[in-house]
Amino acid sequence: MKLKPLGDKIVIKVKEEEKKTTGGIVLPDSAKEKPQQGEVVAVGSGEMIDGKKVPLDVKVGDEVIYSKYSGSEIKMDDEKYLIVKQNDILAIVEE
Amino acid sequence: MKLKPLGDKIVIKVKEEEKKTTGGIVLPDSAKEKPQQGEVVAVGSGEMIDGKKVPLDVKVGDEVIYSKYSGSEIKMDDEKYLIVKQNDILAIVEE
Amino acid sequence: MKLKPLGDKIVIKVKEEEKKTTGGIVLPDSAKEKPQQGEVVAVGSGEMIDGKKVPLDVKVGDEVIYSKYSGSEIKMDDEKYLIVKQNDILAIVEE
Amino acid sequence: MKLKPLGDKIVIKVKEEEKKTTGGIVLPDSAKEKPQQGEVVAVGSGEMIDGKKVPLDVKVGDEVIYSKYSGSEIKMDDEKYLIVKQNDILAIVEE
Amino acid sequence: MKLKPLGDKIVIKVKEEEKKTTGGIVLPDSAKEKPQQGEVVAVGSGEMIDGKKVPLDVKVGDEVIYSKYSGSEIKMDDEKYLIVKQNDILAIVEE
Amino acid sequence: MKLKPLGDKIVIKVKEEEKKTTGGIVLPDSAKEKPQQGEVVAVGSGEMIDGKKVPLDVKVGDEVIYSKYSGSEIKMDDEKYLIVKQNDILAIVEE
Amino acid sequence: MKLKPLGDKIVIKVKEEEKKTTGGIVLPDSAKEKPQQGEVVAVGSGEMIDGKKVPLDVKVGDEVIYSKYSGSEIKMDDEKYLIVKQNDILAIVEE
Repeated sequence: MKLKPLGDKIVIKVKEEEKKTTGGIVLPDSAKEKPQQGEVVAVGSGEMIDGKKVPLDVKVGDEVIYSKYSGSEIKMDDEKYLIVKQNDILAIVEE
Repeated sequence: MKLKPLGDKIVIKVKEEEKKTTGGIVLPDSAKEKPQQGEVVAVGSGEMIDGKKVPLDVKVGDEVIYSKYSGSEIKMDDEKYLIVKQNDILAIVEE
Repeated sequence: MKLKPLGDKIVIKVKEEEKKTTGGIVLPDSAKEKPQQGEVVAVGSGEMIDGKKVPLDVKVGDEVIYSKYSGSEIKMDDEKYLIVKQNDILAIVEE
Repeated sequence: MKLKPLGDKIVIKVKEEEKKTTGGIVLPDSAKEKPQQGEVVAVGSGEMIDGKKVPLDVKVGDEVIYSKYSGSEIKMDDEKYLIVKQNDILAIVEE
Repeated sequence: MKLKPLGDKIVIKVKEEEKKTTGGIVLPDSAKEKPQQGEVVAVGSGEMIDGKKVPLDVKVGDEVIYSKYSGSEIKMDDEKYLIVKQNDILAIVEE
Repeated sequence: MKLKPLGDKIVIKVKEEEKKTTGGIVLPDSAKEKPQQGEVVAVGSGEMIDGKKVPLDVKVGDEVIYSKYSGSEIKMDDEKYLIVKQNDILAIVEE
Repeated sequence: MKLKPLGDKIVIKVKEEEKKTTGGIVLPDSAKEKPQQGEVVAVGSGEMIDGKKVPLDVKVGDEVIYSKYSGSEIKMDDEKYLIVKQNDILAIVEE
């Protein structure tokens, strides 16, 4: 199964860090965390700006940081994905 | 009975998964679920953007994922439909 | 008495289904129902979009589905009408 | 005393129905009523739309229906008036 | 001391009616009153609309009615003034 | 230390009146006061309006009245400053 | 690890003052403080304004003051960063 996001939408494969204490106990998510990171797996055809379609600034394979609480989570083939608008992407991680 | 949605509106035939536990017990809907999936059965004539009518990006027959809590539910001939704006459609599922 | 709606406004004659149980008891309206249906009896002169007047997409006689909680109800000659903006009309019913 | 409304504003002389029961008792206003009716007594010079001034669609003498809770009430010479934006006028009553 | 309002702002000298009962007792302001009246004492240079500066429709000396709870009150030389945007002015009073 | 505000932002040196009773007791700020006054000490390069940069209407040295609760307070060299958008400035005081 | 912010976004390295009393006790953050200061470490490609990309007004190395509660905090290599939109930057500090 593959997703083709519409317009300015972007599909991100969420990178999840296990939250364990040093003793190995898994911690629940706390409400106010740092922004999340993930890998772009599909991008829309572009954003309509003033009647013109502007291609998106991120591309498949980019590692991105997105703002928390943005987008819609989906599950596909047991992986967790997030569909966000490009505007919810804060930065591309360059390593 | 057939529906002709206006403008940027789209009629989706909702795909409902029965929610059963392994023991066969039907579960109630929980409040925070993954986005919903359905099949496009009718599309509007297009979206007005800066005074021009732009044709929609989805077409009849597309399998789509839409964001939760969007649109208006209707029942027709015992089937459940949802009328959403194109902007509430996150991605087209390609299989 | 006749109404001439302004701009993008539309007058709908509301189609009311009596809500009876099989035993004939009239039920009160429940809060979360399916969208309402009605017949267009008057349409405005058009919607201003980017300084141009665009004629409306619905016409008198159309059977339409409109989103709930939209518009203003009025009573005229003992019939119930609703005045909505075209944007609150979801779809035209074609039979 | 006369009023010259600005821009897209319109002065309406409110038509008040006395609310009496058959026994003649005056009833208090209830919170959720049908939209109000009145006569246009003055209109502004027009609405600015995309930098152009567009003349209003209603004129002095029109009997209009306006949406409830819109506008500002004023009292002049013991009559009740309402100043609304044209957008709050739903329809012109033609008899 | 004189004020030069910016852009679409307007300085109004508030006309206060003393609120006395027939017995001469001053009444406190009640929360829901009719719109206020005052005299324009200074007007801004105009409103920016679509990149062009449009001169204001009111001029110094105009007696105006403005919507309640709009603007900022200031006191100067023991007089009460109100600085509002032109959009908060409902009508000019012509006598 | 000097500040160069961005775009339509303006730095104001706040003029504080000591709030003392006749007996010399300092009074706490009350919640609903008259708008504040101050001197412009730095102005941004202009406001973007419809894609064009429009120079600001206030200049360094202007005594201005600004609407309450607008802007961000900062402290520099033991003086209190406020950074506001030009739109939060109501009027220039001319003496 | 390096960040490339998108569009009008800017990465700021937060300058943290330790909050100690004279006796050396670390104080908790209080809710209403002065705006924060930091150094720009990366800037986006520009802001889309009316369909044109306008380069940002801040550059890497600028010491800036930003409005409180804006942006998203991230932690990288044990340093605290903030990603904000240019519009949340109030002024550049010139020393």
